[in-house]
Formats: sequence, C-alpha cells, structure tokens
Amino acid sequence: MIDETAIIAENVKIGSYVVIEKDVLIGNHVEIGNHVTIKEGTIVADNTVISDYSLLGKSPASNNKMARKPADDLEPLYIGEDVKIGTHCCLYRGSTLHPGVLVADIASIREHVIIGENSIVGKNVMVENNTLIGKNVTIQTGSYVTAHMVIEDDVFIGPCMSSSNDKYMASRTEKLQGPTIKKEAKIGNNASLLPGVVIGEKAIVGAGAVVTKNVPTGAIVVGNPAKEIKG
Amino acid sequence: MIDETAIIAENVKIGSYVVIEKDVLIGNHVEIGNHVTIKEGTIVADNTVISDYSLLGKSPASNNKMARKPADDLEPLYIGEDVKIGTHCCLYRGSTLHPGVLVADIASIREHVIIGENSIVGKNVMVENNTLIGKNVTIQTGSYVTAHMVIEDDVFIGPCMSSSNDKYMASRTEKLQGPTIKKEAKIGNNASLLPGVVIGEKAIVGAGAVVTKNVPTGAIVVGNPAKEIKG
Amino acid sequence: MIDETAIIAENVKIGSYVVIEKDVLIGNHVEIGNHVTIKEGTIVADNTVISDYSLLGKSPASNNKMARKPADDLEPLYIGEDVKIGTHCCLYRGSTLHPGVLVADIASIREHVIIGENSIVGKNVMVENNTLIGKNVTIQTGSYVTAHMVIEDDVFIGPCMSSSNDKYMASRTEKLQGPTIKKEAKIGNNASLLPGVVIGEKAIVGAGAVVTKNVPTGAIVVGNPAKEIKG
Repeated sequence: MIDETAIIAENVKIGSYVVIEKDVLIGNHVEIGNHVTIKEGTIVADNTVISDYSLLGKSPASNNKMARKPADDLEPLYIGEDVKIGTHCCLYRGSTLHPGVLVADIASIREHVIIGENSIVGKNVMVENNTLIGKNVTIQTGSYVTAHMVIEDDVFIGPCMSSSNDKYMASRTEKLQGPTIKKEAKIGNNASLLPGVVIGEKAIVGAGAVVTKNVPTGAIVVGNPAKEIKG
Repeated sequence: MIDETAIIAENVKIGSYVVIEKDVLIGNHVEIGNHVTIKEGTIVADNTVISDYSLLGKSPASNNKMARKPADDLEPLYIGEDVKIGTHCCLYRGSTLHPGVLVADIASIREHVIIGENSIVGKNVMVENNTLIGKNVTIQTGSYVTAHMVIEDDVFIGPCMSSSNDKYMASRTEKLQGPTIKKEAKIGNNASLLPGVVIGEKAIVGAGAVVTKNVPTGAIVVGNPAKEIKG
Repeated sequence: MIDETAIIAENVKIGSYVVIEKDVLIGNHVEIGNHVTIKEGTIVADNTVISDYSLLGKSPASNNKMARKPADDLEPLYIGEDVKIGTHCCLYRGSTLHPGVLVADIASIREHVIIGENSIVGKNVMVENNTLIGKNVTIQTGSYVTAHMVIEDDVFIGPCMSSSNDKYMASRTEKLQGPTIKKEAKIGNNASLLPGVVIGEKAIVGAGAVVTKNVPTGAIVVGNPAKEIKG
C-alpha cells in the first residue's frame, strides 16, 4: 500500500506488507523491512535501515484525563542519513534524528525530540517529548528519558535508568522539568533521577542511586539518597 | 482478512493488512490502524481508536514450568467508548476498559483486568491479570502492575514503578497478593512496592523508595527501606 | 510471502500476512500467528506456537559509536519443541531455545543466547547477547538480562530486575562481565545487580536491593548497598 504521491528512490529495498502514506520522501539505498508503516510526510534520508514492524511519523493522542494536550501542528518526522531503526519501534512526528543514530528494537521516540549524530537509543528505551539528546550519547536498554530532559554530548547511560519531571506529581500547573545530564557524565544501571536535577560534567552516578539534588562536576554519587564519595 | 461474521459499523475506518476474526463487534466511528489484529468475539464500542500493530483479545499461554495456569474460559475483551489504544499493544480476553481510557504504545493488559473511566495506562506499562484500576488513574511510562493488585480512583503512579505479589518468590502454593494503592495516593518514579503492602489515601511514596510495609493515610515515605518523613 | 525453499510440515497453521524466508524449516503442528516474520534459515521444531507480530532470526545491527561490533557469522536461530513465543517478540540469529521454553509478549532475545528446558522469559524481558540461562528458570516481567550473564538452573527472578556488565561504563577496552546467579537463588523485584557479582546458591536478594559485591550461598541481602541479614 504505497501512496502514489510518495517519492521513493529507485534503489530502495521494500519488504512485504509495507504501508507508505502520501508525500513521504525516501532517499537512496534505504532498506525497509516487512510490515513497516511510514506516515504522511515523513522524510527518510539516504542509506537508512528501517526494520520490521516499525512505525514512523505517528501523531500524538490524548484523552480527557490528560492535563497537558500534545501538540497538533507537528512538522514531519526527519530521519537523517545512515540511521538504523530496529524492529517494533514507534517514532512520532515533529522529531529529528541526525545522521548515524541507532535506535534499537522496541524503542519509542515522541514528538519534539532531537537526537545528535551517532548516538545510540537502546532496546526498549522510551524517549518522551521535548527532549534534547546530544552527539555520541549511549542510552542503554530499558532506560526512560522523561519529557523536557537534556542529555549532552558523550553521555553514557546504563540500563534501566529512570527519570521524572514533575516535582509535585500531577500538579497540572507547575512547569515540567526533567533532569539535565552534562557532557561525559555516566549514569549506572537502574539509577533514579528526580525532576530538574543537574548531573555535572564527567560526574558518575552509581547503579541504583536515587539522585535528589544536583551532582557537582566530576563527582561520584551512590546510595539512596545519593551522596558523594571519593573516587 | 475480515471474517464475514464480524459486525462492523459502516462508518468504521480500517487500515491495511488488518485481521478481524469471527463474531467481533465494532461500533460507530471506530478507527483501526494498519496491521491490527482483533481476535474472536472482541467488542469495540463507538469512537474508539486502535493504532497500528495492536492485538486485541489474545488468549493466555502457559508452559510446563508455570505453577498457576491461566484461565481458559475467558469472556471476550470489552473496549468501551472513546477509548484510545496505542501502537504495538497487546490486550487479552477477559478484560474490560471503561469509556475514555487511554492505553499508550507498547503496553500490555492481561486477562481479568478492569480499568475505570478516563484512566491512562502509559507507554510500555505492563498490567498483569486480576487487577483492578479505578477511575482517573495515571500510570506513567514503564511502570509494572503486578497480578492481584488494586489501584483506586485518582491515583498517580510515576514512571518505572515496580510491584510484586509473591512474598515467598515462587512458592507455588501461597496466595498471591499485589499492593493496594488507595485513593489519590502518589507514587514516585522507580519506587518498588512489595507484596501486599497498602499505600494509604493521599500518601506519597518518594522516587526510588522501597516500600516494605504499609504506608499510613497521608504519610510521605522515602528511602530503602522506605521510612516516613515530615512533609 | 513464503519462500519456495522453506520446508514446512503439512499440518502447520499459518496466519495472515506472514513472511517466511528461504531455507526456513518448520516442524509438525507448529502454529504461526498473523504478521509473523521468520528470517532465513531459522529452524522451528514440532508443536511450537509463535504469536502475532513476532520476528524470528534477526541479524544484529551496529553504528559508528558502537565500540564492540556484533558478530556477523551467526548460525540460524533454533527453536526447540513445544516452545511458546508471545506477540511482538524479537529473537536473533545465533541463539537456541530448548524444548518447553516460554517467551512472553514483547520480549527480546539477542544472539548467542542459550535457554534451557521449560524456562520462562517474561513479558517485556530483554535478554542480551552471550547469555546462558539454565533449566526451569523464571524471569518475570520487565527484567533486564545484560550481556555475558549466567543464570543457573531453577533460579527465580522477580519483575524489573536490572543488571549490568561494564564496571567502568563505556570503557571500550575492559572485558564485559555480567552477574552470575547460582542455582535456586531468588532475586526480588527491581533489584540492581552490578557487573560481575556472583549470587550464591539458594541466596535471596530482596526487592530494591543494590548488589555491589558477591552474595554467599544461602545468604539473604537487602538495602542499598545490599547487606546480609538473618533470615
């Protein structure tokens, strides 16, 4: 089911049972797996690989309970050159993946997300809306990147990191602010980052640490609540 | 592949490569995405949206190792009016979603689950069998709702909450009992709730807290193990 | 889309929109759901059930940032008799599932993984490459099994366990070593296991514990960091 207004380079490989909607643009040597759906207007640059069952360019949904309605005037999703998208992924409109990004299987990327060159979004990682992820970042399997979070270049996030952005939990009026992780910081597996905390450059957060306040540049913190130790 | 015994309102939108099995009922103005599968007997009420790659009405499976076999005489899945189901979801037979519920992408809902009006089941949330979820509940991304758990009205659960129900871990004979979260309680991100604990009304559980015993009404608990603090 | 070189027993049930690639072998009484993709050379033994939207036999991907490139000379995936695979799963080439294994919905199993008879890989469990899982193991929903991890026979792992294998986080040169969990040990929900720790036989790790060093045979540990208590 390929819409006749989609523009697809001649050398693109397309699997079985693929849906490509109107005004989609697909560059040279792109590979599209089986059962892929690419929604209206999505742009996929050269040499990108999109694996089976992935959905590109979804629009957000909402219900009555949701205090903060998602944007409804989103630009199309843009996938840069040499990007790799795993299987069973779901990427929303209004986001940009720079060249060389790898998104592993069963990952989700919401709207208004920018991901820098060569960064890795691991398996089953959920990236919420309005998030900035720098270059050469690694986010390992199962980590959760909350909305309004900033992850600078060369950050390493181990598996199952958890973050949050709502200090008052469901306040409906307070400004949401996710954590900021500065350049080259490292976060251990299953660490919990509270709303608005800043993890300094080259800081290290231990596995299982619960970070309730800012972590200074180069510091090492562990425990619940996380406290500084000597390296 | 739409079975001829399925009853589908004339104004339903159906995507590509959809499978609808026998005796399915689909109400007015329902929207069904691409690659959706709806199993035998499932009922989908008016104005519901079902996104791509979702499976409605699955029957449970088991193997030799499993001490507690799942039920095999389940009623069909019932999806109320104005419900929204995300992409890559899997909902089982024997469960009921009341009107206005939102189930986000990559979520799973097992059998014998009831979800009240306007509640939100976030992305990648796994809801196990025999669970009661009230009205206006929010369960954020990546949280885990164990079997035999009760979540009352207006509860807020942050991202990556973990719960369990088997005090003796794989006892095979003890009664399973998940946590109970009373009205308007709030649970911080990546909190761990142990089997059978009761979180009191309007209580607050801090991010990363490990809750090993009951939390009184209105109390605030943090740490590992979680202890009460003054708010 | 079934390749003509695939060898499929006559009594196999195949759903709609299925893709079976070349040289696939499928035994007697196998059931294949809708929208399943089975990649080149995969072997599926008798009486196995593969649910909707699952992908069998994927090859690993990599990008420029990734220090450790995945293997590219993998044997085909082998699925033993009486195995059950849930929906929306992704299993890689180079792995072996022994008879009676149950893989629940939305689970992922990477390359060079061996899973012993009758073990259960729960919903949304991610199993990384080069992992050994014994017989009669239970890994509950949402747990994360890092690469180079060993799980012996009769181990029980509760929901949302997290593990890691890189002591120096992104060192690029150090040897990766995941945890080892010895026979009949039990791990509570949302526990964090650090790189290389050994959990002794019949040891118990409490819910939410952060295990930073080895746990002796039969010991019970809780807290952050985990410390031994009397049972």
